[in-house]
Amino acid sequence: MSTQAIASAKEVFDLLRDDLSAIEHELVRDGASTVGAITEIAGYLREGGGKRIRPSLLLLAAKSLGCHGRETIQLGAVVELVHTATLVHDDIIDAAEIRRGRPSANTTWGNSKCVLAGDWLYMQAFRTALEQHNFKVLELLIGLTQQMVEGELLQMELLGRIVGEAEYYDLIYRKTACLFHVSMRLGAALAGTSDEIEEQLGEYGRNLGIAFQIVDDVLDLTASEKLLGKPVASDLREGKATLAVVHAHEHGTARERVLIRKALESPDFQAASHGDVLEILNRHGSVNYALRAAGQYADVARGALAALPDSEYKRALLWMPDFVVARDK
Amino acid sequence: MSTQAIASAKEVFDLLRDDLSAIEHELVRDGASTVGAITEIAGYLREGGGKRIRPSLLLLAAKSLGCHGRETIQLGAVVELVHTATLVHDDIIDAAEIRRGRPSANTTWGNSKCVLAGDWLYMQAFRTALEQHNFKVLELLIGLTQQMVEGELLQMELLGRIVGEAEYYDLIYRKTACLFHVSMRLGAALAGTSDEIEEQLGEYGRNLGIAFQIVDDVLDLTASEKLLGKPVASDLREGKATLAVVHAHEHGTARERVLIRKALESPDFQAASHGDVLEILNRHGSVNYALRAAGQYADVARGALAALPDSEYKRALLWMPDFVVARDK
Repeated sequence: MSTQAIASAKEVFDLLRDDLSAIEHELVRDGASTVGAITEIAGYLREGGGKRIRPSLLLLAAKSLGCHGRETIQLGAVVELVHTATLVHDDIIDAAEIRRGRPSANTTWGNSKCVLAGDWLYMQAFRTALEQHNFKVLELLIGLTQQMVEGELLQMELLGRIVGEAEYYDLIYRKTACLFHVSMRLGAALAGTSDEIEEQLGEYGRNLGIAFQIVDDVLDLTASEKLLGKPVASDLREGKATLAVVHAHEHGTARERVLIRKALESPDFQAASHGDVLEILNRHGSVNYALRAAGQYADVARGALAALPDSEYKRALLWMPDFVVARDK
Repeated sequence: MSTQAIASAKEVFDLLRDDLSAIEHELVRDGASTVGAITEIAGYLREGGGKRIRPSLLLLAAKSLGCHGRETIQLGAVVELVHTATLVHDDIIDAAEIRRGRPSANTTWGNSKCVLAGDWLYMQAFRTALEQHNFKVLELLIGLTQQMVEGELLQMELLGRIVGEAEYYDLIYRKTACLFHVSMRLGAALAGTSDEIEEQLGEYGRNLGIAFQIVDDVLDLTASEKLLGKPVASDLREGKATLAVVHAHEHGTARERVLIRKALESPDFQAASHGDVLEILNRHGSVNYALRAAGQYADVARGALAALPDSEYKRALLWMPDFVVARDK
């Protein structure tokens, strides 16, 4: 692992400010359609913000290898479009009412329009990517999107049931880490680096993504609604078993195991409350267990950057895992 | 226009039998996923049948220009996959319960899984197309799919309202004719023909697609549930104004116009019955007007083949408009 000092949040933000702003402009252009409803929905989603982590990863991967071209802006917008498309369809599936502190798009425009808006955003992402006339980029992007969709379906099949750690990790790879992974690889592919470096940067993304989702899942259990911008314990309520819950189930007493399974099986905590489950998690140190696991993935992510030449972009990549693990929303 | 004699249905079927059977095999392979629910839904949709008109058009376009390669089978499957993906999402949007005489996929698997299954089928279509490493093919395909999605959204915005003929034609171009158009152009592109011939074959597809949809819309008004494989007058019930209805509204009395608008506005014929509307259509010869319009588009389609060298494939293409216009389901 590099001994280079790690950047600060402000430093990273300054480093990417101009590029992220160019990506916002690209997203405005990419979100415009002759059909009013699409432009409206795309605008609403764009203005909802979000951390733009995926485009940032793509930018940092490309720049750390000396690639600063216009294509990084375009593909940065593309990975954000794909991410947005998955969110729109996921919110329909989860019947989510709130996203990022505002009504979810399906609440405002209805499910039907949002099915189509999500489709349109996928197509727009592929169309924009196609402009680069790079088959590798298209293969990464389309293969990835399909894996994400499969992940959502797998998750649906597991709803209401306790899962093992292996299943949990497979699921969060597909749901989240896959797009982090591909964002890094796309950045590396644009820079035209060796397969080895591309793979290492991909590994960075994969491990960072897993750390990110573990923390996301912990926050869903422990943070306040105000910080999250959506109701707390949505995962439990929807029957999704996340790492801390899986841990507590594996280490709990027979009575506790029954209670956890009941909480997952019955919608809206009719059989077991969020508080009951939190008590069990505390008793077994399950939240700390999950956070430690996230920390380990963050370490592996940092380690995957060893062969990368030193630069301010590498410094920023070294900072990212800390940011992801330490965030409170 | 060619003076060549027109083929019979049996002749066309014999001509394409082996290729269509190869496309079915390709569809089986393309519909297989590691996620059980996807393989199930894809299989259900494939076994539901359908006329395979789009792959047939692609095959005939390519073959009429001397291209018979494996790529025609692959892309034939791709246009069918795109068509299937749009059907799955449309059935969610229309809350359709019946498709091709069987419960629609959303009735069996629920909307959530079908949103994802539709997404997956789109990705699979693009991934399969990507294997050909042909940017033109990808541009045609992705651009098209986006237009179709926009068409569905436009249609949603116009639900419950009477439209003019121009709006009606724009809508059916996007909904249906666009994929016919692109299927023909993909076939021509595979054969590597001149831009002019590609455009003419595209025009054939566009006009044929419009004729096809006009007839589809007429059948929805006049055919029996048994023949259609779905409830009659679904369009009216869902508030979709089709050509015969647009014509009757333009030529009707003030009272008749009010009744037509009421039928479109109120779901499930609470304000005006299917029979009331049919009576008005009969009074103004509106169904015949729509069928005549379909016949004219069919003629233009045939005319677009003038420059194509004579062959059994051209004969089959000349037959297709008759088949489309004369069908009763």
